[in-house]
Amino acid sequence: GGRGPVNIEEMAAAIRAGNRTALARGITLIESTRPDHQEQAQALLAVLLEKTGKAVRIGLSGAPGVGKSTFTEALGSYLTGQGLKIAVLAIDPSSARTGGSILGDKTRMEELARDPNAFIRPSPSSGTLGGVARRTREAMLLCEAAGFDVVLIETVGVGQSETAVADMVDMFVLLLSPGGGDELQGIKRGIMELADLVVVNKADGDLLPAAKRAAIEYKTALHLMRPKSQHWLPEVRLASALKGEGLAEIWDTVCRYEEIMKETGTLEAQRADQALAWMWNELREGMMETLRTHQGTKSRLKALEGEVAAGKTTPTAAARSLLALLLRD
Amino acid sequence: GGRGPVNIEEMAAAIRAGNRTALARGITLIESTRPDHQEQAQALLAVLLEKTGKAVRIGLSGAPGVGKSTFTEALGSYLTGQGLKIAVLAIDPSSARTGGSILGDKTRMEELARDPNAFIRPSPSSGTLGGVARRTREAMLLCEAAGFDVVLIETVGVGQSETAVADMVDMFVLLLSPGGGDELQGIKRGIMELADLVVVNKADGDLLPAAKRAAIEYKTALHLMRPKSQHWLPEVRLASALKGEGLAEIWDTVCRYEEIMKETGTLEAQRADQALAWMWNELREGMMETLRTHQGTKSRLKALEGEVAAGKTTPTAAARSLLALLLRD
Repeated sequence: GGRGPVNIEEMAAAIRAGNRTALARGITLIESTRPDHQEQAQALLAVLLEKTGKAVRIGLSGAPGVGKSTFTEALGSYLTGQGLKIAVLAIDPSSARTGGSILGDKTRMEELARDPNAFIRPSPSSGTLGGVARRTREAMLLCEAAGFDVVLIETVGVGQSETAVADMVDMFVLLLSPGGGDELQGIKRGIMELADLVVVNKADGDLLPAAKRAAIEYKTALHLMRPKSQHWLPEVRLASALKGEGLAEIWDTVCRYEEIMKETGTLEAQRADQALAWMWNELREGMMETLRTHQGTKSRLKALEGEVAAGKTTPTAAARSLLALLLRD
Repeated sequence: GGRGPVNIEEMAAAIRAGNRTALARGITLIESTRPDHQEQAQALLAVLLEKTGKAVRIGLSGAPGVGKSTFTEALGSYLTGQGLKIAVLAIDPSSARTGGSILGDKTRMEELARDPNAFIRPSPSSGTLGGVARRTREAMLLCEAAGFDVVLIETVGVGQSETAVADMVDMFVLLLSPGGGDELQGIKRGIMELADLVVVNKADGDLLPAAKRAAIEYKTALHLMRPKSQHWLPEVRLASALKGEGLAEIWDTVCRYEEIMKETGTLEAQRADQALAWMWNELREGMMETLRTHQGTKSRLKALEGEVAAGKTTPTAAARSLLALLLRD
C-alpha cells in the first residue's frame, strides 16, 4: 500500500495554488530522514525557491507560562481579521525527548487552527537543534511559496533555539511577563540582545501597573545593550493576549520595522547573510556527519578519541590523521 | 644561512632539562605556519606529551586598565619566592591587527622577566582566535614538559578569547577593579559565568572601601549564576598588586580549588573533555580549510556562495553539492 511516488511538479503547483494538504505533505517530505525523501524535498524547494521570500518572517520566544500560545492565537486572529494569511511554525528540539511539544497540542490554538487563513505546524519532533532548525527553515520557504503573508516561528525560552530562530527570521520578538526585574535575572542576557521587539504580555487587570513598570525596566535594559542594527532601536510594547489588546500597535511596529529594514537594504543583506551562514552550518554538519559515519574513519575516530581523552595523543595530531584518512579516498 | 634542520629528539631533551632557549625555539616552531615546521612541532609534542599535565593551569582575564600586568608580575614574583616555577603565556587575537599586544611590551613585567624561575611569552601575533588558541595551548604543554609548576594564560577582557582560555585551563580567574556595579554592567554576563575566582584588584588606599563594596556586589552576582561545578562555588578575593597584598590568600584559594578538583576526579574529566573539544575544533577547522583551499571545490564554493546569497539555491542543496565534490576524489 502507501502512496505512490511523489510527483514534484504536481506538488509544487498545488502548493503554489495554496492547497493546504499539498503544503502539509511537502513539509512532511522535508521532515523525513529517508534519503530519497530528502532528495525529493530538495527538488521541491528548487522548483519553488523563486516564489519564496515575500513573507514577513517573525520569530517569537518566551519562557513557559508567559502565554506564548495565547499570544500567537490572538495575533494570528488579528492578522487574519486584517485579511492576511499567517503560518505558524515552531522549533523545539526538546520535543523528541520530552514527548510534549510547543504547538503539538493543537487544542491550545483551537480558534486559529480552524481559521482558513491560518496554517499551524508543530515542531519537527526528532533530531538535533541544527536538523530541526533546517527543516523549520525549509518549511518556512514552502509556506512562503504557498502565499502566506506572515510566517511566525515560535520557540521556547531555553537554550540555543532562540539563536537558531533569530538566524532565520527578519524580526525577533521576545514575550515577557510583568514579573519585571526578577524575571530579567532569569533571562539570559544573550536572548535580550537578540530582541528587536519586547512584548510585555498579561498587561491587564491587576497586573497592568506591574506590566508598565516592567516595560520601563526592560527598556532600560535594552538601551544598555548594543543595538543589532544602526537603523532600529529595540522597542517595548504592552499587550494582553487574553483581552486581545495591544495587537494593532504590535503589528504596526512590525510593519514599521520591516519597512525600515527594506528601505535601508538591511533586510536583503540580512537574509543573504542568514542563507550563507546556514550553508556553512550545513557544510560543517555534513562534514562532521561524514566523519562519524564514513567507513574509513569511523573506527579510527573512536580509537583516537580515547587516546586524546587519555592525553596520549595531541588533539591536533589526532585531527590531522583523521583528515588525511578522510580526504585520501 | 639560517639554522640547520631541527633535531627533535635533542630539542625535546633540552626542553625537558629546563633549557629556556630550547623552550623558546620549540614554541617558535609551534607558532610557525610553515607546513614542515608544523610537522616538526607535532613530532616534538608527541615526544614530550607524556611529560605534560603536571602544572596548575590558570586563566586570567580582565578589562584594560584593571592592572593585569602588575597583578601577573606580583603573583609571579610571589610564586617564585615560594620556590615555584611559573610560565606566563597570552592569548590576544587582536595583536596582529593592532600591533600592540598584551605581554608584548616586556618592560611591563621587568622584574618577572629577569626572574630565572619565570618564563614570559607574548601572544602569537597572527591568525584567527582558533589558531592563536591552539598555539598557546601547545606552548602550555611545552612549558609543562619543561617543568613549570604553574602556567598562567592571560587574555584581554573582550570578545571570545575568554572562552578559548577557559577551555584550556583548570581555573579561570577574573580580575576586576573596585568600580563595582557600574563595571559589572560593562562585563558580559557570560564572562562572569566562566569565573572560578574573582579578584578585586587595587584594594588599597582610598579605593579599599570601594573594593570591599565591589567584592560584595560581585559575590551576589556570582551567586545568582549556576555554578560550573557542583564541587566549587566561585569565590571573591581582594588584592593590591601594587602593594603585593592578598597574594597568599589568592594562591591558597587556587591550591584549594586544584585539590578539590583532583580529589573529586573533576580535574581529570575536565582536561579530557577539553582535549576532546579541542580535537573536534581542529577537525572542524581543518575541514573548512580544506573546503576553502581544495582545488576541486574552491571555484564551485565561490559560485555557490553567490547563488545562495541571491536566493537562487537553497543552502542545503549548495552544501550537498559541495560535499559530494569534496569527498568524491
